[in-house]
Amino acid sequence: MSHEFPGDPIETAVEVLERVRQRHPLVHCLTNHVVKNFTANALLAVQAAPAMVEHPEEAEEFAGVADALLVNLGTLGETQMEAIRRAVASARAADRPWVLDPVAVGGLTLRTRFAAELLQFRPTVVRGNASEILALAGEAAGGRGVDSLAGSEEARGAAASLAGQTGGTVVVTGAVDYVVAAGREIAVSNGDPLLTRVIGVGCAMGALIAASVAVAEDVFSGALAATLWLGIAGERAVEASQRPGSFQAALLDALDAVDAKALREQARFGGEAGG
Amino acid sequence: MSHEFPGDPIETAVEVLERVRQRHPLVHCLTNHVVKNFTANALLAVQAAPAMVEHPEEAEEFAGVADALLVNLGTLGETQMEAIRRAVASARAADRPWVLDPVAVGGLTLRTRFAAELLQFRPTVVRGNASEILALAGEAAGGRGVDSLAGSEEARGAAASLAGQTGGTVVVTGAVDYVVAAGREIAVSNGDPLLTRVIGVGCAMGALIAASVAVAEDVFSGALAATLWLGIAGERAVEASQRPGSFQAALLDALDAVDAKALREQARFGGEAGG
Amino acid sequence: MSHEFPGDPIETAVEVLERVRQRHPLVHCLTNHVVKNFTANALLAVQAAPAMVEHPEEAEEFAGVADALLVNLGTLGETQMEAIRRAVASARAADRPWVLDPVAVGGLTLRTRFAAELLQFRPTVVRGNASEILALAGEAAGGRGVDSLAGSEEARGAAASLAGQTGGTVVVTGAVDYVVAAGREIAVSNGDPLLTRVIGVGCAMGALIAASVAVAEDVFSGALAATLWLGIAGERAVEASQRPGSFQAALLDALDAVDAKALREQARFGGEAGG
Repeated sequence: MSHEFPGDPIETAVEVLERVRQRHPLVHCLTNHVVKNFTANALLAVQAAPAMVEHPEEAEEFAGVADALLVNLGTLGETQMEAIRRAVASARAADRPWVLDPVAVGGLTLRTRFAAELLQFRPTVVRGNASEILALAGEAAGGRGVDSLAGSEEARGAAASLAGQTGGTVVVTGAVDYVVAAGREIAVSNGDPLLTRVIGVGCAMGALIAASVAVAEDVFSGALAATLWLGIAGERAVEASQRPGSFQAALLDALDAVDAKALREQARFGGEAGG
Repeated sequence: MSHEFPGDPIETAVEVLERVRQRHPLVHCLTNHVVKNFTANALLAVQAAPAMVEHPEEAEEFAGVADALLVNLGTLGETQMEAIRRAVASARAADRPWVLDPVAVGGLTLRTRFAAELLQFRPTVVRGNASEILALAGEAAGGRGVDSLAGSEEARGAAASLAGQTGGTVVVTGAVDYVVAAGREIAVSNGDPLLTRVIGVGCAMGALIAASVAVAEDVFSGALAATLWLGIAGERAVEASQRPGSFQAALLDALDAVDAKALREQARFGGEAGG
Repeated sequence: MSHEFPGDPIETAVEVLERVRQRHPLVHCLTNHVVKNFTANALLAVQAAPAMVEHPEEAEEFAGVADALLVNLGTLGETQMEAIRRAVASARAADRPWVLDPVAVGGLTLRTRFAAELLQFRPTVVRGNASEILALAGEAAGGRGVDSLAGSEEARGAAASLAGQTGGTVVVTGAVDYVVAAGREIAVSNGDPLLTRVIGVGCAMGALIAASVAVAEDVFSGALAATLWLGIAGERAVEASQRPGSFQAALLDALDAVDAKALREQARFGGEAGG
């Protein structure tokens, strides 16, 4: 997983999408209770393979075998903290990519300390909203609960600083998403506000990033491809439904339906959010 | 949160609905594993903000910050019992409303004892089916599992007695829902039998009550508004689909769509169930 | 629950379906975190009654009262292992049927050992994919994660051997499903590949088997009825939608809609998979 950027970002994203669908990367998810089902369905919708293996002993064993690991702190508990520690060490030892989603870090004491500890294991990708990225970079106290009080653009500096610290990629999500690595940043303005009315879309994005990075030539391209994929799927889904219940199903349908043509026609870069 | 009744119940419900949508109350849910996702989506559908923070240390911290707390005993475990004890004490200390949903109390020994213990913390609202309310009030042995063996009207006296004990409001759900407080009772006959064919509708109602009470002038009005909102949404959803899978999505859509006009035209009071 | 085969398998399945809808068997599910919601909704869709009671003390109490018990090892943890041990012993003592779903057994050390231990309690039905059944019968090392590396037909011998060991029925699921008991085997070729694109369909099948066996004249017929019911529902659902998000809702709708006529017209036996 080098960090060279291999050409046109859209064509690279097309390549990642096709590889995910052909190779079915196995993504080990240590994620929160609220979104396990939706995360698994999002992975299946893109033809990746989800597996939630949670016993600390099994999590350690499995993280060395799966193609990527997702760690999401949403409903952190003591046993899960042990499972995460062992799985992350195992993934690192086996040179597997791992994604950290620092849900509500900054707003709660215990997980803020734990996330800081996890940074030592250098997450391949960190995905969070602005409040979380600011807090993880040590620059702010964070939000109240899971919603960001800051716009994503306010966390660009923190993301760059965090990427410098981990040597990986950082994705700040919001009305505009920023994909940030050492000396590099791309802003993606795909998506729709309705994505915030379905629980677990951000969490599922962490899983899609894990699946994409597992098959991508480089980490940055994998993270960018997943960001585009989800944003464009959100735009497609909102054409099918503008109410949250049916939009949720439409979003999974759209993750399945987005193809090379959609990526080429709909990808929107730069800091102007649509929707 | 006084208990004076501020005028026409429908106009009060309209006011609560609008406040939930404007203020996005943050509802801390300590609820069961089966319904976490649906509960969060129901809260998002009404534009409230869900947060499931479960580590006992974090639960205590968060319950003092969130706008309301929901405690649901569906899949009770030792760690969750500790989290609940600490969160409830914290919510009380910070004068935040909290809702108790005593799932299957009466039918199982451990949770029946635990629910009785929790009554000392005087839940702002208790929501349950007739078997659960009867058991919690000490008047019956309760059901087998989660379904009530009694009609909701049989638990009206138990609800009044329980409300006297807690100083709060009690909602007995069934074909007819009874909202009961000291010297006051309103029967709501909105809803549809299909609501019992989707898991977690009753549990989500506890969360909607928490969101509504967080913004209402008084507890009784908040509980009544949530009861009307969900019942009318159920009637709307059944117009969209009469099969349980698509009805589930339609119900979330309807929670989003119900407006002042729907409340004014569709609210049905009294003991005659429709559907 | 004798093992005599009471006549025409389709008419027997019709009888099971009708009994499930009339008697609402109460199914105690000790299952994995990812699929609890979908499993409960699948049970409600067939008009059975789900209950997830998880505290070891309550699980023991409840397993002696419910009509059937489902044990699924997907997200095994220490507390759940204790709950499973106590619930299975309680179900056996009360002569209640119990279903074992050995998710990912063979691929992970701890659960493979635990599943072997559970075999001593002679599960009424075991449901798994080929890798899992082969591993449980001691014939192979199993898959990586939850997907089978072998076709279901490769596990027919292992299923027969396992059925001999437990004295019960074994269902091997795949493109073709095999229902196997002592000296008896029926292959069912209903279903659709899209069933593998929704998380928890196999897990829900374990729950449907539990509900069906609870009301069937004999175990084999109950397991066969559930296998047909789900396969035919899958075929119906794919007519409604060929994308995974809306297919999920359509599948629940179809479980509700499948009737005697559908069973009689669509049941397909033998080793030729459709779809």
